[in-house]
Amino acid sequence: MPTWLINYLLLALGPLAERWNWLHRQLNRLIINRAVTGARTRPHPWSTAHAYISWTSLTDHAWSARHLPEHPQEGLPAPALVSRLFERGGKPQALCAKSTCLFPAFAQYLTDGFIRTRMPNSSANETEEVRKQNTSNHQIDLCPLYGRTKAQTDVLRLKSPAQRGRLKSQRINGEDYAPFLYEDDGETVRAEFKNFRGEDILDTPLGVEHKKDPGLRRAIFAYGGDRANATPQVSMINTLLLREHNRVADALAADHPDWDDDRVFETARNILIVIYIKLVIEEYINHIMPLPFRLRAEPSVAWNAPWNKPNWITTEFSLLYRWHSLIPDKMVWGGTAYPVGATGMDNRILTTIGLAQAFQDIAGQPAGKLGAFNTADDLVQMGIEARAIDQNRRCRLAPYTAYRRYLDLAVPERFEDISSDPAVVRFLRETYVEVGKIDFYAGLFAEDTVKNSPLPELILRFVAVDAFSQALTNPLLSEHVWKEGSTFTAWGRELIAGTNTMRDILARNVAAPLGDARIAMTRADWRRG
Amino acid sequence: MPTWLINYLLLALGPLAERWNWLHRQLNRLIINRAVTGARTRPHPWSTAHAYISWTSLTDHAWSARHLPEHPQEGLPAPALVSRLFERGGKPQALCAKSTCLFPAFAQYLTDGFIRTRMPNSSANETEEVRKQNTSNHQIDLCPLYGRTKAQTDVLRLKSPAQRGRLKSQRINGEDYAPFLYEDDGETVRAEFKNFRGEDILDTPLGVEHKKDPGLRRAIFAYGGDRANATPQVSMINTLLLREHNRVADALAADHPDWDDDRVFETARNILIVIYIKLVIEEYINHIMPLPFRLRAEPSVAWNAPWNKPNWITTEFSLLYRWHSLIPDKMVWGGTAYPVGATGMDNRILTTIGLAQAFQDIAGQPAGKLGAFNTADDLVQMGIEARAIDQNRRCRLAPYTAYRRYLDLAVPERFEDISSDPAVVRFLRETYVEVGKIDFYAGLFAEDTVKNSPLPELILRFVAVDAFSQALTNPLLSEHVWKEGSTFTAWGRELIAGTNTMRDILARNVAAPLGDARIAMTRADWRRG
Repeated sequence: MPTWLINYLLLALGPLAERWNWLHRQLNRLIINRAVTGARTRPHPWSTAHAYISWTSLTDHAWSARHLPEHPQEGLPAPALVSRLFERGGKPQALCAKSTCLFPAFAQYLTDGFIRTRMPNSSANETEEVRKQNTSNHQIDLCPLYGRTKAQTDVLRLKSPAQRGRLKSQRINGEDYAPFLYEDDGETVRAEFKNFRGEDILDTPLGVEHKKDPGLRRAIFAYGGDRANATPQVSMINTLLLREHNRVADALAADHPDWDDDRVFETARNILIVIYIKLVIEEYINHIMPLPFRLRAEPSVAWNAPWNKPNWITTEFSLLYRWHSLIPDKMVWGGTAYPVGATGMDNRILTTIGLAQAFQDIAGQPAGKLGAFNTADDLVQMGIEARAIDQNRRCRLAPYTAYRRYLDLAVPERFEDISSDPAVVRFLRETYVEVGKIDFYAGLFAEDTVKNSPLPELILRFVAVDAFSQALTNPLLSEHVWKEGSTFTAWGRELIAGTNTMRDILARNVAAPLGDARIAMTRADWRRG
Repeated sequence: MPTWLINYLLLALGPLAERWNWLHRQLNRLIINRAVTGARTRPHPWSTAHAYISWTSLTDHAWSARHLPEHPQEGLPAPALVSRLFERGGKPQALCAKSTCLFPAFAQYLTDGFIRTRMPNSSANETEEVRKQNTSNHQIDLCPLYGRTKAQTDVLRLKSPAQRGRLKSQRINGEDYAPFLYEDDGETVRAEFKNFRGEDILDTPLGVEHKKDPGLRRAIFAYGGDRANATPQVSMINTLLLREHNRVADALAADHPDWDDDRVFETARNILIVIYIKLVIEEYINHIMPLPFRLRAEPSVAWNAPWNKPNWITTEFSLLYRWHSLIPDKMVWGGTAYPVGATGMDNRILTTIGLAQAFQDIAGQPAGKLGAFNTADDLVQMGIEARAIDQNRRCRLAPYTAYRRYLDLAVPERFEDISSDPAVVRFLRETYVEVGKIDFYAGLFAEDTVKNSPLPELILRFVAVDAFSQALTNPLLSEHVWKEGSTFTAWGRELIAGTNTMRDILARNVAAPLGDARIAMTRADWRRG
């Protein structure tokens, strides 16, 4: 079915589908299947392990899978030159017409739990080469909240017979947060997060070694994810889900006096992971998609789908999800504008204003516009764009045009086919000379954004493929697990059904009513084009 | 489609299908899909981790999955009593009308690589409880040959630039075998199989601690699998595949002078694993199936199948594959009859007569008949049946009748519905009183064997489900890996296409021609009933 016909059908039938469930299910299935079948179904033949197909490349998930095989990298412009594509050069930041900062906050939280590029451990003399690998479980498993491993989960749990199923928490300014990771000195990891040999069980928060302020370090939370302390807005989302977990655990414990701590915990986690998948599809993906139709996370779409194959994050994803230009130069928290470079890892910003105000602040300011010449100076100076290009080259990715072809998108023949911005066209021409030479990472962000979406076309297509093909394949949504009443309990199933947005969850986890506060990824002033 | 109609179609169309490829493909697909859809598709909601559905039970593969949830075990007869169902009581062993000893040898080799029940490590004070777990990679990956881990694979490889891609081997009596694991003292693991901390890299051969004869211990091979030295017939199959790997590696190295040792090794392994899967389906499963039709390992059957879901061995399989009564009391090797208890772990039996003679001997004697009152005394006295019943109870398996119902088989109402043997009926009645109480493990082997198959009905159905649903889901057979020419090379693809039986492989890996020697799982005197 051609795309124009689908769009016509959606426009014509969308309002009807909102009221007629059967029709909604048909359209929902059609759109999801079309989105996913754009890419090759897994397993991918190649990974970053070898340049050829090996049992290792097919089974060792520590290496990242790849959509396209290795490609020569000779004769390409220097990464330092290419990274200028992202520099703003003194001009004011362009803003996104559609998105608030809640959108990049959620994107960061999601990818920090799933993509998980392996980072060089400088104390172990590791090089940038380790970025070919990942530390992902390749599941949407809420590991920022629960940890990647059983040992991590165990130390995050309260394990109290009097408060069955809960995660550890503490009260700050009358609100619940995770416990602190460090003792009051901001240096010593608390004994409860160490094993009997004195080794840290939780992953060290990424980048904490650069933070010297004892006050900031003291406020680092003990989280499952090594990136969940990265910014106050990511920490905010983890805090929301921590509170919801404990709320759900309390309710399950009250309903099931015969259940032990483990069973309450496990059932609460089952519910939380599915609620989170609903946020991914029903709040986040619906925000991204330019469609006049709200998709639903309907598990049965995947049950018999040919694309329901084991998840495996790709090396392409670890690059195409670097949406640095979405981050504004300044973030307003509780009425104060902070330069973005000054907010990193500072949970005090969050705890001072509290969770409800934090969500309102983040959703109250527009995100930057994703694309060329628009990354905040603070971030460019940290070298994040140059490192991304370096990783692109080390992983020997195929050129940008090859990925357009791979996803059945029009392959640009001239530089003008890529962007409507003459400065971008000029930069690409001067830097690459030939269209076919453009790096994957450069091409991704050189494109114009798609009408009614915050994303450019190639990124949008890749994100849609993975969102559905890796979220709907979650074992909790699989046919016989989903149908089994005990997986969530009847109460949990109703809770899942009634939860569609972060606002829904926030409203039941803060003291004061939210009233008519707008807490959404889409700007209040956005209008469909 | 009813079963009688399928059988009629196969009888009528079978001969035509042998010559008409299109028709064969349709029938092949039909049979495989019917076999697999008898059971619930994966992921299974439960594992041995918890009595309820948890993220652990859905993702931690160290626990075994389960087809049916936990069931109370109260009021059941003592395991010691039930184990008498397997004792022969002085009568001569009943023999299998269809199978030679090559059938149980292959079954043992296959399951030792895939089911891999975790065994209690007595030096670590582990109890029988660890049998709820497994050490499987949940793939048909030839781990008895290549090891379960990369570190194991690495020490098994020759890694010689002059002989690229090979596994280590040695010459004994002019034939190739794996290197020995121990120094000449039969005690000290050779340094090449230890890591820099002096720890063993290969898993210790299971049961070697009970073997005191230095000559026997000296002949233990350095294999990937801890069970691959278990009997000479299992060692024989691993030796065959070792030789084939090195033959394939030599051919690839000669064809590809530019490939390094890794690439030759990996491509040879790709080819070997698929050849092995062909043996599983085209030799082994065809032997088991009572159909008048030869199934083929056609990868495309699984590509879009709803049952193509990630593999996970179940706790039921670790019991239903214990075919102890197939093992005859005595095994004839090179003209000498050995009591079966005297052959365990003795590779000297194999190396003395050589590989070709070993295959001919094993295929020249009938297997025992699978079923009640027929396990060799040596094995019963080792306690293997009592331990199996103990494991059945520890894993809290549902009763036998519940599994018949689960697979849509007729559920017996009277003891006479289970077996035509009055002694079996009497034993079950006296032991269990109620049909619904019969243990899974007891019911499996109390059944009559199916006409034209060496297996009873419930075992046959389970084996068929898993053979197809876990073999055809191998990543090497997946759509885009299979279609990619470089996975196997054109030469390798032809080799795969031309290999259907162990005899095919043996003929190219022994010095003297096999002539008209019969080397098959099916007895020469078997006639379809």
